Amino acid sequence: MCGVFGIVGVPKAAEITYYALVALQHRGQEAAGIAAADGERIRAHRGLGLVTDVLAKETLQQLAGDLAMGHVRYSTAGSNTVQNAQPIVVGTHRGQVALAHNGNLVNAPRLRIALEKAGSLFQSSSDTEVVLHLLARAGEMPFADAVVQAVRQVRGGFALVLLREDRLVALRDPHGLRPLALGQLGDAWCVASESCAFEAIGARFVRDLAPGELVEITRDGLTSRRWAEPQPRLCVFEHIYFARPDSDIDGWNVHAVRKRMGRLLAKYHPAPGDIVIGVPDSSISAASGYAEQSGIPYEMGLIKNKYIARTFIQPSQEMREAGVRMKLNAVRSVVSGRRVILVDDSIVRGTTIRRIVEMLREAGATEVHVRISSPPYRHPCHYGIDTAEKQLLAAHRSVVQMCTDIGADSLAFLSVAEMMEAFGFDETSAYPFCNACFSGDYPTEVEAFDKFDLERPAREGVTA
Amino acid sequence: MCGVFGIVGVPKAAEITYYALVALQHRGQEAAGIAAADGERIRAHRGLGLVTDVLAKETLQQLAGDLAMGHVRYSTAGSNTVQNAQPIVVGTHRGQVALAHNGNLVNAPRLRIALEKAGSLFQSSSDTEVVLHLLARAGEMPFADAVVQAVRQVRGGFALVLLREDRLVALRDPHGLRPLALGQLGDAWCVASESCAFEAIGARFVRDLAPGELVEITRDGLTSRRWAEPQPRLCVFEHIYFARPDSDIDGWNVHAVRKRMGRLLAKYHPAPGDIVIGVPDSSISAASGYAEQSGIPYEMGLIKNKYIARTFIQPSQEMREAGVRMKLNAVRSVVSGRRVILVDDSIVRGTTIRRIVEMLREAGATEVHVRISSPPYRHPCHYGIDTAEKQLLAAHRSVVQMCTDIGADSLAFLSVAEMMEAFGFDETSAYPFCNACFSGDYPTEVEAFDKFDLERPAREGVTA
Amino acid sequence: MCGVFGIVGVPKAAEITYYALVALQHRGQEAAGIAAADGERIRAHRGLGLVTDVLAKETLQQLAGDLAMGHVRYSTAGSNTVQNAQPIVVGTHRGQVALAHNGNLVNAPRLRIALEKAGSLFQSSSDTEVVLHLLARAGEMPFADAVVQAVRQVRGGFALVLLREDRLVALRDPHGLRPLALGQLGDAWCVASESCAFEAIGARFVRDLAPGELVEITRDGLTSRRWAEPQPRLCVFEHIYFARPDSDIDGWNVHAVRKRMGRLLAKYHPAPGDIVIGVPDSSISAASGYAEQSGIPYEMGLIKNKYIARTFIQPSQEMREAGVRMKLNAVRSVVSGRRVILVDDSIVRGTTIRRIVEMLREAGATEVHVRISSPPYRHPCHYGIDTAEKQLLAAHRSVVQMCTDIGADSLAFLSVAEMMEAFGFDETSAYPFCNACFSGDYPTEVEAFDKFDLERPAREGVTA
Amino acid sequence: MCGVFGIVGVPKAAEITYYALVALQHRGQEAAGIAAADGERIRAHRGLGLVTDVLAKETLQQLAGDLAMGHVRYSTAGSNTVQNAQPIVVGTHRGQVALAHNGNLVNAPRLRIALEKAGSLFQSSSDTEVVLHLLARAGEMPFADAVVQAVRQVRGGFALVLLREDRLVALRDPHGLRPLALGQLGDAWCVASESCAFEAIGARFVRDLAPGELVEITRDGLTSRRWAEPQPRLCVFEHIYFARPDSDIDGWNVHAVRKRMGRLLAKYHPAPGDIVIGVPDSSISAASGYAEQSGIPYEMGLIKNKYIARTFIQPSQEMREAGVRMKLNAVRSVVSGRRVILVDDSIVRGTTIRRIVEMLREAGATEVHVRISSPPYRHPCHYGIDTAEKQLLAAHRSVVQMCTDIGADSLAFLSVAEMMEAFGFDETSAYPFCNACFSGDYPTEVEAFDKFDLERPAREGVTA
Repeated sequence: MCGVFGIVGVPKAAEITYYALVALQHRGQEAAGIAAADGERIRAHRGLGLVTDVLAKETLQQLAGDLAMGHVRYSTAGSNTVQNAQPIVVGTHRGQVALAHNGNLVNAPRLRIALEKAGSLFQSSSDTEVVLHLLARAGEMPFADAVVQAVRQVRGGFALVLLREDRLVALRDPHGLRPLALGQLGDAWCVASESCAFEAIGARFVRDLAPGELVEITRDGLTSRRWAEPQPRLCVFEHIYFARPDSDIDGWNVHAVRKRMGRLLAKYHPAPGDIVIGVPDSSISAASGYAEQSGIPYEMGLIKNKYIARTFIQPSQEMREAGVRMKLNAVRSVVSGRRVILVDDSIVRGTTIRRIVEMLREAGATEVHVRISSPPYRHPCHYGIDTAEKQLLAAHRSVVQMCTDIGADSLAFLSVAEMMEAFGFDETSAYPFCNACFSGDYPTEVEAFDKFDLERPAREGVTA
Repeated sequence: MCGVFGIVGVPKAAEITYYALVALQHRGQEAAGIAAADGERIRAHRGLGLVTDVLAKETLQQLAGDLAMGHVRYSTAGSNTVQNAQPIVVGTHRGQVALAHNGNLVNAPRLRIALEKAGSLFQSSSDTEVVLHLLARAGEMPFADAVVQAVRQVRGGFALVLLREDRLVALRDPHGLRPLALGQLGDAWCVASESCAFEAIGARFVRDLAPGELVEITRDGLTSRRWAEPQPRLCVFEHIYFARPDSDIDGWNVHAVRKRMGRLLAKYHPAPGDIVIGVPDSSISAASGYAEQSGIPYEMGLIKNKYIARTFIQPSQEMREAGVRMKLNAVRSVVSGRRVILVDDSIVRGTTIRRIVEMLREAGATEVHVRISSPPYRHPCHYGIDTAEKQLLAAHRSVVQMCTDIGADSLAFLSVAEMMEAFGFDETSAYPFCNACFSGDYPTEVEAFDKFDLERPAREGVTA
Repeated sequence: MCGVFGIVGVPKAAEITYYALVALQHRGQEAAGIAAADGERIRAHRGLGLVTDVLAKETLQQLAGDLAMGHVRYSTAGSNTVQNAQPIVVGTHRGQVALAHNGNLVNAPRLRIALEKAGSLFQSSSDTEVVLHLLARAGEMPFADAVVQAVRQVRGGFALVLLREDRLVALRDPHGLRPLALGQLGDAWCVASESCAFEAIGARFVRDLAPGELVEITRDGLTSRRWAEPQPRLCVFEHIYFARPDSDIDGWNVHAVRKRMGRLLAKYHPAPGDIVIGVPDSSISAASGYAEQSGIPYEMGLIKNKYIARTFIQPSQEMREAGVRMKLNAVRSVVSGRRVILVDDSIVRGTTIRRIVEMLREAGATEVHVRISSPPYRHPCHYGIDTAEKQLLAAHRSVVQMCTDIGADSLAFLSVAEMMEAFGFDETSAYPFCNACFSGDYPTEVEAFDKFDLERPAREGVTA
Repeated sequence: MCGVFGIVGVPKAAEITYYALVALQHRGQEAAGIAAADGERIRAHRGLGLVTDVLAKETLQQLAGDLAMGHVRYSTAGSNTVQNAQPIVVGTHRGQVALAHNGNLVNAPRLRIALEKAGSLFQSSSDTEVVLHLLARAGEMPFADAVVQAVRQVRGGFALVLLREDRLVALRDPHGLRPLALGQLGDAWCVASESCAFEAIGARFVRDLAPGELVEITRDGLTSRRWAEPQPRLCVFEHIYFARPDSDIDGWNVHAVRKRMGRLLAKYHPAPGDIVIGVPDSSISAASGYAEQSGIPYEMGLIKNKYIARTFIQPSQEMREAGVRMKLNAVRSVVSGRRVILVDDSIVRGTTIRRIVEMLREAGATEVHVRISSPPYRHPCHYGIDTAEKQLLAAHRSVVQMCTDIGADSLAFLSVAEMMEAFGFDETSAYPFCNACFSGDYPTEVEAFDKFDLERPAREGVTA
């Protein structure tokens, strides 16, 4: 999970990009970077941390030009290095190219080994670098053609933004597994992972890029082409968890979808409760839907501490045993003596929900009924979400077993069909979504892929 | 507005204090500090920024001992210096004393001038230092007696925590204008501005300190005394805005009070709307109360960006005009074509609410009816809240004028009596609350006070 | 040991002060600070570290005004806190006062206890704060008179600079134990611990302040008074070790004095050697004098690494045993097979010279004859140099014993009379110097003084 | 100009490397980095600044293993980016490789263009990256063979250190233009740009690598091969200016050579003076040689401020005109009324020497005779020293013109033959030195080379 943004034809493009990235910050807090171009050269800056940590005023001023693009990177284990931050900027026989990428390329390890054998050398463990090597090896042809030639060799879910000194190319994979939206700020075209970035900068949301679509943006305007046959398999987890509730993705408003999921959850999986509580922040929409549908009052029974910063000293085991509990707090006077219906958007590892159930009981809840606004998460995602099968609570467990595991009085999930109803589909529909994490039905070939493949000894190391 | 905490008789008292301060961080983000004692000496560290910025692991380890106290400081103009951070630690003829303070002393400027004439020298512009000078000039007597002798000379709203090498003294002003709660972690007694700090560290909330009460805590236990006749005038604004919703203050749960305010707002001040929206984060409770009472659905129509950190580059005027809008975003698909009832907890200057109304209209709201869950804020607070009369929108304006000012279709406030109903009082009650900001009825003498009095040239300057 | 500077009547006085402090940096690397005044108010900034660490461009710009003064602080054990950094700025009944101080007050502990009993409270463990309390307690009278009344109560060696919003007062103790020079930059008067600060800022050295002299500088000019009967006992160690070789102090150029000491050392204490080597940097002058007088060539046999910064990771014991040796390196090709005459300015603890002798032998020196250009350092200094008697190698040892201790083939010191000859005095002169560290003959009363007295538990603690 | 170090077969190899780099810090203060290997993988860290800024204790601990190498980088315009810091670590079909490099490759631009055409992509503007691409494209063969195949394609002056997970390869160009020495720490072999690094870590200097020699070091020991026919053209400027005086390079001690140069300067170019002054720090050796030979006393007439750190606020033009002068100070009492012989090691741009002559006159020197211990520097260096022809004062000027330019009373240089005499050669010798900067006689082809060629738009930009 990452966030990308790009814009062409606006003064101080890097500064606009900064604000867009802050709006996309929820998609990745590990690293951030911006590349800008002025028609003649590309300048870039990137680093570890939040957008506001990495990019200072003076830095933005140095990133001159009316073309810019940026990236925020999701925190994944094992690769927390500046070398892996984006955009990556390289020199090739066709000049400077900057690239930012959201998604995963399932065949990157195989491509990398082949490229290395052909004499390419790699400076990061990111699969993004593979795309650049393919691009460098494309022959003499227009830039956008070379990009198409490169991406036709990769498989997976991806949204890419590439910057040249005078143009920007953005594209989406044939399945549309990762989102990418098109906007306009005055006359200037822009692209972003989510439409909330457009709202933040005062731009107008125009439409989503279609799966398999590529746009090339210059100061003269936008041209679009279909670089691959679209086979829509949109990522349902964007709607369930990742995206900001105020974004519209592929035609659905995220908050509205979540609220409908909550309503359907109440309809199909009622629970005997006095109050409905959502796990902040991502489950608030679903919980309020559940409350409305059921007529059971929605209460703020869990408070999240928003000051747990990067430098927070995590409580030691000793302190945790002594009761220190920082991130979430159950509100005793709300919860005490009540039967709680606890709504969460999903269960991945199950550790958080287990702790919340325990916390609610300690605060005096007489019963805790857990309702999840998505199906059991059983299969690892290969398209941009960082999960290993063995970590998934639902992988090899029944709902009854899971209920016992998390210590709830009852537990229920939406089925895939019920969840799809929230998007307006009935059981006869051919869903345009990838539900592989729930069903195991992957839209692409899946190589025996291990996200650490690209970080095996031979590639690791440089931390700055 | 500040937050204080203190604890006696627990290993690693400074570390416990760190977690308690993080839980109190909403009460002040300007500066933070901790003082700890081991029976023989006091060690302290303080600095500008969040608790997690100021206090590193190594620092906490150096603050040895089983007694500790800490402070978080609210951001006020003109005094953003380490010199004004707390706790203040001084040497006097009775040994080391550390002091942390929440509140304002209305007679501090007069006391300071008198003390200076008597040869005292001041190293900060904080009124807290006045208390220490009075304490230093108290004669030979037990520590707690000397504290009482000092505080009997000050007027205002205050909660004080004082640390000696082997004991902690905490007290509340006679009106109880600032909150202070008593808790227990195992056998160890602790005090905190709000009970949410106890939840965070696994301590048990015992009771609030009474107005005019002083407690002295040693390793042997707690003794309490009434140092002044209690005349309860609790601060209603703690419940309206400052406190965390999961805190209980003086017998009321903050979230529950806010929700009742929202219900009463709907009952007495209905509005013709399709959806209810609260201004995040502090008005969510009241808005959900309004929605429940009115039967109009509550929606997340405003999203707050939680990544606007201290280092965020504020948009220039030019960027703001271009539409850059970072803190709050209106959700178009929720708002568009709807009549919005916008619930906020209060109007102080009016600039924020004006921008939100405008933003909602731009997002397509057909009508915007503003409902405020407190009365018009007309008079400056002299007891810890940083407002000047000239900045108050309501100071010299009718509700109709204010409605025009903020661009709403209608505007209504709770009356003082309606607000008091949320606490369970009817019109015949003698409210135990200070409502001076709404009524102008101040519980203490009010000198011609100017918060910058203590920062006139003669006292300003040292920034580190 | 510290350095002070002050100037009145020049635009950007704080910036000028910055450059003067960088020139005085050798007098103290622990902390630095500047206070500036614009006729109406004083603004200050101070912090731990080098001048260039503590003071950034923006900070200097905020320190507005045409009056300024600054301080660099020497690294002493146990008090490395911002609270002890200078200038100290306080508010008193006579307005703001900033104070910077070089020296030690031998009766500070006694004065402090008395002040505390009278109700003063102390925020640092620095003896400088005592002067400010005495000043705060002086009655209504002109500022300079009040300063005189305060300093008449203190004993010791000191050079003080005090800043008011519109004037600067500087003074030197009756014995002139600490240096203070007067200069002029255009028409603007300035004072500095050493004349090298004047050279750095393009100012003209006018003269030294006399012992017991006070100058008051306003925009209108300078007035001088004799506040105490002068009894000159200048510090000889300034010339031996502390001062920069390009400074002139009390009429002698430091480099010239050191070179003459080296010549006299060669004359009275010849040694059989092939080359003369000085310990960098402070002994280079003396060593070159020795070489010239003896006709034995001077060689660079020891190289100092100038990149050992504050953040240098000190070699562990394990690494030191493995041979890691960073600060000084003996040049094998210079030293090998030679009889070395090693000239150092003084022996305090003896640990450094012992290591150097060992290093020279390892590099192949066949003999090492140590010659010290001052007498054995036998008695602790109470006037600004941080030494405890028990740490002094010479305290209870004969020269023969010391020679064995440091592993030299021979060892000789200048006698007090020989050292005084370098200043032009013969044995019949009444030396105007304090030689107490060599002779034990202190110019003032010496209370049973312990530098940690001011840091006993009751005063310690605040680290920021 | 840069410094390199490598070591194999010692515990905590990264820590040893840290100390060696601090000893080599004079060779480059722009950036630093260390790569370490434990037999299985390489880990690295690099950054902008001094060794002590870039490498913290925790970082060193993460760089595990018994093989390590490091680099310090010289400050050159236009490329001050982390991307250009070294060691560079890349993944290739033969695994991880780390490379550090001292020197310049004159044919790098041409090679780079060819590589890019063949599909290589470049992530830095450093010519070092070219070597890695050549290495990546070498076929299947032992590592050292592949290194030889790569470096046979490059021209210029270079000393390279390459690290694999289990071995280290170091080599010197056929002319030996850049130095590289071999040492032993116990049984462990190490290489360093200068022998002073060995002294610092307690290692033994064994010998210099021969021009055209390559050594491969594993835990089992060292093997050496001649990879190119040696044609010794050692860099004379290492002896004149770059190297530390305590280093031995190619059989000559640097201090001793400089001192002999000073003696010869006095012999062939006497001057009528009262005192000899050297420009600190690099000309002290030559000046003391001049003084000894001439019998004219050597004096410390110029003092260098060693506290001008990276964060120093450079005086504005306004301040400089006002007389602010920080780096060097002339000692008035030494200089005043004297005829000064000023010895410097070289004149490159001439700006510094001009200012020093002026400063000496202002301090009262009656005459200033400048003597330079090397010939006029007329031709740009292509082998590691950053000079453009147009910046060279001597490029198109006679000695008489230069004397006028710098404002001296007389000016003289050593001739090439006289300088060579300091190394023991007479005019009949075929000097094994490159004197191209004085003579224009370059030992290699010289392409129309511009150091910014590698930084043309297409390659610039990433600053982190």
